[in-house]
Amino acid sequence: MATVDRKAATGTLTPAQALALAGAALAPRREGPTRVVVLGGGFAGVHAAKYLTALLGRRTDVEVELLSEENYFVFQPLLPEVAAGGIAATHVVNPIRELVPRARFRCCKVSSIDLAHKRVLVSQGEGLELVGVPYDHLVFCLGKVTSFAMMPGVSEHALAMKDLSDAFGLRNRVIRCLELADIEANPDAKRALLTFVVAGGGFSGVETIGELRELVDRSLKYFPRIRREEVQFKLIHSQKTILPEMPEKLGRAAQEILEKRGVEMVLGARVRAASREQVFLADDRSIATRTFVCTVGNAPNPIAKHTIAAGGFQEAQVGGRGIGVFETDAMLQCVGKPGYWAVGDCAAIPSPSGKGFCPPTAQFAIREAKACAKNVLAAIDGTPMVTFAFKALGILASLGQRSAVAEVFGVKLTGFVAWVLWRTIYLAKLPGFVRRLRVALDWTLDLFFPRDITQLQVFQHKRLDIHHYEPGETIVREGQIGREFYVVLKGEVEVLQGEAVVATLGAREVFGERALLEDTPRTAAVRAISAVDVLVMSRGDFRSMVTSLPVLDDYFAKLLRERHPDAMKRDAGSPSAGVATTDT
Amino acid sequence: MATVDRKAATGTLTPAQALALAGAALAPRREGPTRVVVLGGGFAGVHAAKYLTALLGRRTDVEVELLSEENYFVFQPLLPEVAAGGIAATHVVNPIRELVPRARFRCCKVSSIDLAHKRVLVSQGEGLELVGVPYDHLVFCLGKVTSFAMMPGVSEHALAMKDLSDAFGLRNRVIRCLELADIEANPDAKRALLTFVVAGGGFSGVETIGELRELVDRSLKYFPRIRREEVQFKLIHSQKTILPEMPEKLGRAAQEILEKRGVEMVLGARVRAASREQVFLADDRSIATRTFVCTVGNAPNPIAKHTIAAGGFQEAQVGGRGIGVFETDAMLQCVGKPGYWAVGDCAAIPSPSGKGFCPPTAQFAIREAKACAKNVLAAIDGTPMVTFAFKALGILASLGQRSAVAEVFGVKLTGFVAWVLWRTIYLAKLPGFVRRLRVALDWTLDLFFPRDITQLQVFQHKRLDIHHYEPGETIVREGQIGREFYVVLKGEVEVLQGEAVVATLGAREVFGERALLEDTPRTAAVRAISAVDVLVMSRGDFRSMVTSLPVLDDYFAKLLRERHPDAMKRDAGSPSAGVATTDT
Repeated sequence: MATVDRKAATGTLTPAQALALAGAALAPRREGPTRVVVLGGGFAGVHAAKYLTALLGRRTDVEVELLSEENYFVFQPLLPEVAAGGIAATHVVNPIRELVPRARFRCCKVSSIDLAHKRVLVSQGEGLELVGVPYDHLVFCLGKVTSFAMMPGVSEHALAMKDLSDAFGLRNRVIRCLELADIEANPDAKRALLTFVVAGGGFSGVETIGELRELVDRSLKYFPRIRREEVQFKLIHSQKTILPEMPEKLGRAAQEILEKRGVEMVLGARVRAASREQVFLADDRSIATRTFVCTVGNAPNPIAKHTIAAGGFQEAQVGGRGIGVFETDAMLQCVGKPGYWAVGDCAAIPSPSGKGFCPPTAQFAIREAKACAKNVLAAIDGTPMVTFAFKALGILASLGQRSAVAEVFGVKLTGFVAWVLWRTIYLAKLPGFVRRLRVALDWTLDLFFPRDITQLQVFQHKRLDIHHYEPGETIVREGQIGREFYVVLKGEVEVLQGEAVVATLGAREVFGERALLEDTPRTAAVRAISAVDVLVMSRGDFRSMVTSLPVLDDYFAKLLRERHPDAMKRDAGSPSAGVATTDT
Repeated sequence: MATVDRKAATGTLTPAQALALAGAALAPRREGPTRVVVLGGGFAGVHAAKYLTALLGRRTDVEVELLSEENYFVFQPLLPEVAAGGIAATHVVNPIRELVPRARFRCCKVSSIDLAHKRVLVSQGEGLELVGVPYDHLVFCLGKVTSFAMMPGVSEHALAMKDLSDAFGLRNRVIRCLELADIEANPDAKRALLTFVVAGGGFSGVETIGELRELVDRSLKYFPRIRREEVQFKLIHSQKTILPEMPEKLGRAAQEILEKRGVEMVLGARVRAASREQVFLADDRSIATRTFVCTVGNAPNPIAKHTIAAGGFQEAQVGGRGIGVFETDAMLQCVGKPGYWAVGDCAAIPSPSGKGFCPPTAQFAIREAKACAKNVLAAIDGTPMVTFAFKALGILASLGQRSAVAEVFGVKLTGFVAWVLWRTIYLAKLPGFVRRLRVALDWTLDLFFPRDITQLQVFQHKRLDIHHYEPGETIVREGQIGREFYVVLKGEVEVLQGEAVVATLGAREVFGERALLEDTPRTAAVRAISAVDVLVMSRGDFRSMVTSLPVLDDYFAKLLRERHPDAMKRDAGSPSAGVATTDT
C-alpha cells in the first residue's frame, strides 16, 4: 500500500492552486515497490494495466495503480446499438475492478500532474479532497474529449455518442419523440419530432444513424398514428463520401445501402449552430428536428494539454500547430522524458509504416498498451525495450439491419457477410465471459422479437438542492474547502469560530458566500440551532444567476465587501469580476 | 379515433384553473363507439385494459384507452432485486403498448377530471398542452403516492423503493459508497459510508435490506480495503415483529434469518427526520449513514382525493376519517356513481370475507381488474354483473441469498424451499415471454457469477438550463401558456405584439416573468434578433430563489408592478406572495 498525502481541497482548483496546496504538505517519498500509475479507464488505460499486471505475475516489487473517473470500462463500438435498444446498456460496460483485479483502482478525477514531486493530484471522495498519488512511471491514457465549442448551441442541444449516458439518453429521446408524435396534432411539430439528424459521417455517426433507423422502423408498429413516410433520417457529413477512414469504394457502398433504407445524405455540409428546434448548416440551410446527435468535435484532454505546456513535453504538430497530444518515440515513451509514457488517443506514436502517426482506434490502442507494458517493465528492470509494430487487421462499420461494410486483410466486403463478420469480431473483442454471453443473447432475441420501447424514467428531475439539518448538526466545517453557498430557508444556524459563537443567522440569510470568491478553507463552522432547511447552490449555478441579474451581482458584491474586506481588495476589477472569474 | 379538445395550457394548473380553461373550449360530444378510459399504468390499470380488450375481441362499438405518465409498466415485486443488481433494470419493465396492443395508449399526466363534461383533462406533449379525453366509463386505477411530508428531510435525503428510478438510484448509490469507502481514511466517514439503513419492515423494506446485504457481501471481494465487519445493515420497523402482513411466526422466522446474516433489527422505532448525514428516530437515537431507503409513507393520489371531494364520491373511512380512496360496491362500481369504477390501491372494495376492504396487493388488483372489465362491459350491454370474490392464494417475502418466508394455501414455509417458490411464482407472474426469459437468465448467471459493480453514470449533472437561439427564431409564442422565465445572457431579442416590435431586450434583461404570476397565455412573442443565449428557469426554481433572497423578491415585485400593473392589483398581499403562491 502506498502512502498518499491527504489535504482537504477541491476538484475545481486551478492546476496552479492545486500544485501550491499539495506542494505545501508533501510527505517524503517513502521506500517500497516501484509505482506505475496509469491514467485513464478507456481501451488504452485498461489494457495497459491489464498487461502490466499480467507480466508482473506474482512479483511484488512493482505496483500498478489505475486512476479513472468512472468505475467501469465502456466498450464504445457497441454504444450505437445500446442507443438503438439492441443491447442492454449494462452489457457493454465492465467494472474496471473486475477487468484488472490485480491492479489497484482509484475512482477519482485527475486535477493535475505535480511533475516536480512525481505525484498525480486527484480529487476523490464525497468532499472531493485533493490527494497526491505518487508514481515512478506514469502512463498517460487520457484519450480526447468532446468539444462543441465552435458550434453555438450544440453543447446545449445536441447529444454526443461517447459515453453510456449518451447512448442511454438517445434511446430515451427517440422513444419519447415517438410517444409525442403519436399524440401531436400540429403537422410541423410532428415532422420535427419524427426527424432524426446525425452529424458526422465517420464510424460513430454512420453506425448511429443506421441503428436509429432500425430502432424507429421496428418500433413503429406500436404507434398506430405515425406513418412510415412521416419519419426522416438525415446524416450530415462535411465531405462527398462517408466513412473517410475506409476505402472510398466502401464509403460509397455504405452510402447506397443507407440511402436505399431511407437515410438522406446531407453531404459537403457542416453544422454551424443548433437551437432547441433546429440544426443550422454553414450554407444557411436549417433542419427542424428534436433529435440531433453530433459525433464531430474532438479536443485534446485538458490535463494532457496542460501537462505538455507545464512540463516541457514534446507536443505533436500537424501543419505546424500543436494538437495537444504527447509525441512519443517508437518505444511509446514521451520524447525525451524517461518514466513518462503515452498510449492511445492522447499520444502521437510514430506509425510503424514510417509515415505519420498511428491512427486513434481501439485496435491500435490495445496493441500500444501491450508494447508499453513490456517497455515500462524493461525500463524498471534495465532490459531491452521493444519497438511498437502493428498493422491494422481490417476495418468494419455496421449499418444496422443485418448490413455492414468491411475491409479485412485487404478484402472488401459489404452487406450481410460483412455484418456477420462485424458481430463476430466485436463479440470476441468484448471483455468478460458473462458480458459476451449476455450480448450474444441480446442479439439472438433481437432477431426474433421486437425492440424494447420503454422510455426509462431513471432521471429524477433535478431542481435546486435543498438540504435538511437537525438541531446540533454541523453544516459547514472550519478548515473544509468550500465550493457551495447556502441560503437559510427555515430555522436558525450559528456561526462558530472554534467554540465561540460569532453570529446567528435566520431565514433569508446567506452563508458560505466566500466560496463564490475562491477555494480557500472555510474560516468558520456553521451549525444548526433548530431544524433547518437550506438551499444549496454550486458556484456554477450561482455564477449563472449573478452574472445575468445585475441586482444580485450588486447585492453580493456589497455583502462580500462587508464580510470579507481583505479578500475583495485583491480583486482589482468590478465586484462581479471577482465572483465570475475564480471558477475554472 | 376520438376527437380531443386541444388548448395550449400547462401541467401545473390548479384543477380549478384547468376546469375553467377546458370548459371554455369544449367541443360537443360526438357520436361513436362507447369510450372506456382507464387511468393508471400499474397492476390495476394495465390488467383492466388488458381484460377489457380481451373480452371485446373484434367488437368495434367499444373503445378502450389507457392513460399513464410512463410508457411502461413496472413489475414492482422485483424492484429490490434490480436495486441489488441481480436483475437488469430493463428486464422488470414492459412497454404498455406491447402489453395491451389493442387498447389505445396515451402517455400523459392527468390534471383533473371534468365530471360535468365527462372528460379527463390531461397535459401531454412537449408543451404540456391541456387536452380533454372524453369517456363514457371511467376506471380509476390511480394507486397511491409516496409521501414523506411528516418526516423533515426525508424527501430530500432518502431513497424510496417505488419506481425504476429508485431501484436504479439505490444500486448506484451503494456501489458509489463502496468506491468512496475504499479510499476513505477518516474512520467515522468510512463507517457512515458502510452503513445501510432501510425504514419499514413490510415486504418492500424486508426484501430491500435482504437484497442490499447480498449485493454488498458479494461485491466486497473487489474492494480490498473494506473489511466485512466494517459494514452495517439496519432495518427500522415500528412494531415488534417485521412483516405485519404475515402470520407472526413467519415474521419472527424472517427476523432470525436476517439477524443471522448480520442485519440489525431496530424495532419499535419510528423515523422522525433525516439529514444528509444521519437518520433520526423518534426516541432521539440517530444513525450516521449515507444510504437511507424509506419504504414507509403512503398518501392518497391527489387526483383521487380531489375527484372524491369535487364530485361527491363516497370516500372510504377508517376510524371515522376519510382515507382518500374511492369506496366501491362489490361490483367495483364507485358507490352511487354509475359509469365510474375503481380498482387497486385507490379503491376500497368490500372484502369477499365480509369484513373490511380488500388488501392493497398486486394479487388482488389483478383479480379486481378482471371482475371490473366484465362488469364495465355488462353495464354497457345491459347484462348482469358479477360480484367480486377472491381469496388470497398465499403470501411470500424474499430475504435474499436463497432464503424466503411464505404462507401458501395455509402452509408456512421458510428458507430455501420458500425462496424457490418465490422465484417460480414471480417469474410466472412477470408479463411477457422475452422478459421472463431474460430474468430467468439473470437469475441463472447470478448463481455462478459475481454481482455487477458498475456504478452507471447515466445521470448527466444538471445545472440551470441554457438555451441557444439563432437570429429569427421564436423563443416565446404569443398565446402559449408560459411556465418559464428567461434571462438574456448574450445577444438581443425583440418583443412582438402581432407584427409590431414593442421592445428590444439585451444581455441581463429578463422576459417571460409573467409566468411567475399565473398561468395565462403569453401576451407577446419574443424573437431572437442576433444569436442568443438565454438562461431558462422553471417557476419552481425561481420561487426557491425569490422566496429566499429578499433582494430578488424586491426586484421582481418592482418589475412586475411596472410591466403588469393589472395582474398585480388582483393580489392583495405583499409582492412576494404573488410570486410565491400561484404555483401548485
